[in-house]
Amino acid sequence: MERTNPAPRAIHGPTNPELPHDGVQRVGAAIILRPEMEDRYRELHAATWPAVLAQLHRSIVRNYSIYTAQLAGVTYLFSYFEYVGSDFAADMAAMAADPATREWWELTDPCQERIPGTPEGQQWLPLESVFHAPLDTPG
Amino acid sequence: MERTNPAPRAIHGPTNPELPHDGVQRVGAAIILRPEMEDRYRELHAATWPAVLAQLHRSIVRNYSIYTAQLAGVTYLFSYFEYVGSDFAADMAAMAADPATREWWELTDPCQERIPGTPEGQQWLPLESVFHAPLDTPG
Repeated sequence: MERTNPAPRAIHGPTNPELPHDGVQRVGAAIILRPEMEDRYRELHAATWPAVLAQLHRSIVRNYSIYTAQLAGVTYLFSYFEYVGSDFAADMAAMAADPATREWWELTDPCQERIPGTPEGQQWLPLESVFHAPLDTPG
Repeated sequence: MERTNPAPRAIHGPTNPELPHDGVQRVGAAIILRPEMEDRYRELHAATWPAVLAQLHRSIVRNYSIYTAQLAGVTYLFSYFEYVGSDFAADMAAMAADPATREWWELTDPCQERIPGTPEGQQWLPLESVFHAPLDTPG
């Protein structure tokens, strides 16, 4: 799929810092949901296996949501989670090595289609942050 | 834009509850970012006005992120925030009535293009939740 728009320029500032303010890495990502697998995907995610959730917890992932929407006739999934550890690569590798997670991905990967431009070796396309405000205290 | 896929069926369960587990309403939404306005939008959101952040806080919005990605040649924005109040409609109406927020939206609305299917009177297309796990304790 061609990129028709000019390449964007990252702009960092108080509400789009280059590094997290608070040690929390907020990860947004997207992938295509195959229409014929949508019901299956929804069923799986309404009752995610406890062993998969336990591995996410061991990999120091918190507050994990997945949303869906149809855009221009294509159904997408959008995920958001917070990583609160200190070695993201190692914690993601631990997830990828976990037998229950691997078995889970054998069911969920066929529901998904990787988006063109997704980095090699990754399943989901990373989204770029353009704004974040914790809003815990008045701005 | 036509919907080519069958209408989806909401499926609720332990990790996609019909109502929030914890009193937190997690709002995901999407909108198109006009390519010619992308730099302007990024500049604005790297230094969001303190008065706009203050109104978000008064409207009991927390942990607000906006991401961007290009999908099939179109640039989208995806937002995620947590509403922790008890009257979402009233708190959103207070935001829409705030003079600083209205002035801000006069700058940001022209950067955006509403997605076909977005409900009347709304700027952003609401995303449907298919999964949420707080993961505060092992699953």
